Amino acid sequence: MNFKIYVIGDIKDKFYKEAIKEYDKRLSRYCKIKIIKLKNADTLKKELSTKTYVILISTAGQLLSSVELANKINELGVRGKSDVSIIYVDNGISIDIEPNEHISLSKMSMDIGLATTIIYEQIYRAYRILNNQPYHK
Amino acid sequence: MNFKIYVIGDIKDKFYKEAIKEYDKRLSRYCKIKIIKLKNADTLKKELSTKTYVILISTAGQLLSSVELANKINELGVRGKSDVSIIYVDNGISIDIEPNEHISLSKMSMDIGLATTIIYEQIYRAYRILNNQPYHK
Repeated sequence: MNFKIYVIGDIKDKFYKEAIKEYDKRLSRYCKIKIIKLKNADTLKKELSTKTYVILISTAGQLLSSVELANKINELGVRGKSDVSIIYVDNGISIDIEPNEHISLSKMSMDIGLATTIIYEQIYRAYRILNNQPYHK
Repeated sequence: MNFKIYVIGDIKDKFYKEAIKEYDKRLSRYCKIKIIKLKNADTLKKELSTKTYVILISTAGQLLSSVELANKINELGVRGKSDVSIIYVDNGISIDIEPNEHISLSKMSMDIGLATTIIYEQIYRAYRILNNQPYHK
């Protein structure tokens, strides 16, 4: 699976950058994952490949458990959807894109660095669940 | 307001420790906050003061928005409940305590360090909201 994580805005805090870097490393045995930081939402549409499967994440989306997210990732693999774009959208930003899925991490608004950390942690958790591996090695 | 954040288990990752430390610093102008790490749930009951207001956090609780959480903290202050114990409980741990509130950050299971970071970030966010201050200085 090939994930691109699109975030609009800056990740300011060093500890979130470190967290993302660490999960990126832990995920390297399961998938390809890349973060793409955009200055604003205007350039998003042309950044996305036409074949990619688009998952929008905002507080307005569907709330999933970690197991439900893992099953969704597994299902995408089974259906041959190997190119997945995850777009995290902060409250108040509107984007001109029709996603394939719209999910939510929480009803709470969050720092963009924190939300991105959760996305990485949940993808890592999903692979640990799908491989019947304990979360902590 | 005087918050005690009880977590059961170890916060292993350095970046989560750093995040908590930083929010602790940012919160120092608004409230007192202290993290209390317990080895297991057995000692929790005797750790809690009898007068404290107990908020349990687990995936099974009520999902709140950041504004709803801020209003709840404000309301506690108005009612004179200045001693608040927040207990984060991971999936699968049962505790022998009747909380005053049971709330949820997310339906997703999370690393204990990540969940604690969210709790700190949301309390910080609550004070910024209540004081009509922008989230980023």
